[in-house]
Amino acid sequence: MRLRFTKMHGLGNDFVMIDAISQRVRLTPEKVRQLADRRFGVGCDQVLIVEEPTSPDVDFRYRIYNADGSEVENCGNGARCFANFVRERKLTGKQSIVVQTAAGVMTLNIADGDKVQVDMGAPVLVPAQVPFQANEQAATYAIEADGQQWQVSAVSMGNPHCVLVVDDTETAPVATLGPVLEAHPSFPNKANVGFMQILSRREINLRVYERGAGETLACGTGACAAVVAGRLRDLLDSDVVVNLPGGSLTIQWQGGEHPVVMTGPTAHVFHGQIKI
Amino acid sequence: MRLRFTKMHGLGNDFVMIDAISQRVRLTPEKVRQLADRRFGVGCDQVLIVEEPTSPDVDFRYRIYNADGSEVENCGNGARCFANFVRERKLTGKQSIVVQTAAGVMTLNIADGDKVQVDMGAPVLVPAQVPFQANEQAATYAIEADGQQWQVSAVSMGNPHCVLVVDDTETAPVATLGPVLEAHPSFPNKANVGFMQILSRREINLRVYERGAGETLACGTGACAAVVAGRLRDLLDSDVVVNLPGGSLTIQWQGGEHPVVMTGPTAHVFHGQIKI
Repeated sequence: MRLRFTKMHGLGNDFVMIDAISQRVRLTPEKVRQLADRRFGVGCDQVLIVEEPTSPDVDFRYRIYNADGSEVENCGNGARCFANFVRERKLTGKQSIVVQTAAGVMTLNIADGDKVQVDMGAPVLVPAQVPFQANEQAATYAIEADGQQWQVSAVSMGNPHCVLVVDDTETAPVATLGPVLEAHPSFPNKANVGFMQILSRREINLRVYERGAGETLACGTGACAAVVAGRLRDLLDSDVVVNLPGGSLTIQWQGGEHPVVMTGPTAHVFHGQIKI
Repeated sequence: MRLRFTKMHGLGNDFVMIDAISQRVRLTPEKVRQLADRRFGVGCDQVLIVEEPTSPDVDFRYRIYNADGSEVENCGNGARCFANFVRERKLTGKQSIVVQTAAGVMTLNIADGDKVQVDMGAPVLVPAQVPFQANEQAATYAIEADGQQWQVSAVSMGNPHCVLVVDDTETAPVATLGPVLEAHPSFPNKANVGFMQILSRREINLRVYERGAGETLACGTGACAAVVAGRLRDLLDSDVVVNLPGGSLTIQWQGGEHPVVMTGPTAHVFHGQIKI
């Protein structure tokens, strides 16, 4: 099978994007692993395949696969790459794109400078639903790890997050405290761990230790969870720039049941053709 | 600048191959680093650029750059990729290709199944020229490292190699003993360290801890040095299959001043276009 593809990234989280509308594509987990291999294939964190929707109410459908061949529910960086990819490939000219994903239907909006706005849904704060072990909901919880007590927030953005405020993300103990909090018994499904430095009410620095993956260049749901946590503690306004190691996102949250809206850039790296 | 390129690999050592004959190419070290970046660029160990020769007696000239932008003298895996690349791009139809490199003029021959035969030159065994500190030349030398004595051979294939025989490459202490022998005071310019398991007089397993790079999937000069060392100790015949983690090479050496000839495969991975 000869495959045309585009390599893109969102804040350094990189994707092999495949248009399965204008070409016939049949990918097995083995072929995904081959494509994702950085020496023997194209190389990427995830493979994203754009397909015809199964419902007439939506514009597209996409699937995302990890480098190990397993299917992922959804991914904020991938959603943004998708929106710019279908416009670049001239599969649509719309500014607002409705897409089916494994996690449900999403609407993506093109913003200034090809940035893409993604509705990430409302945060979940009820402890049992995060899930987090606590008797009642609070903005922060005291938990023990590495012989110290930490004030953490527990937020689900579809996946569980543990967020703490640090003085300086540069010196924060991400590599050591990250895995300890990730596996802390208070988070029965484990957690992504965010280390947030408050620069002002409108800007934070953030490093995220991702569940099962370690520290990454940019975690979209982590950025959302950090802003929600900062808002709960009244440290932030409703419109915040989040500086991650791979680049910056803007996160907006009006509070309560309002959705969290993430706006961020993507980059086209190259086009290619591979026989697999 | 819009650049067409081909991604290839030789035993997992991967290259971005650029034809600078049919397209205008001006690469700065910064652009090489950008191309070599595995997330923000194409991703590779080295960038290889094919140019018109400066002399009428040769067919091509190539340059190889490391991922950090520095120029490399030469590389056996790159030479094999080059030979198949210029044939695939139809820049030549020859079976025997003469090419200028930073390390001198080489002749590459196409063998069965698109394998490429590379003349790697005669090995250098005179201790002062390896360089290795010893009073007189020998097949092996006893040196101390990590509180133990090791019998090693000292061979230069343009770069210094320290080769030792182990019972089993799988369990050989490559990660621990490799860096110690690499920086051993007997090798004043440091050394690549080869751990060779003799399977028969015609086949070995080999793992190489490369100087400045750590263990790699396949080191062409390391394979040559290992066979030379095995021949000096009369453990091997003149035609030997060398199994490296990235695949197998065949190494031939008649002894003495005869050149070492390396034969091995390459693989085309994909074609692409990038704007840099």
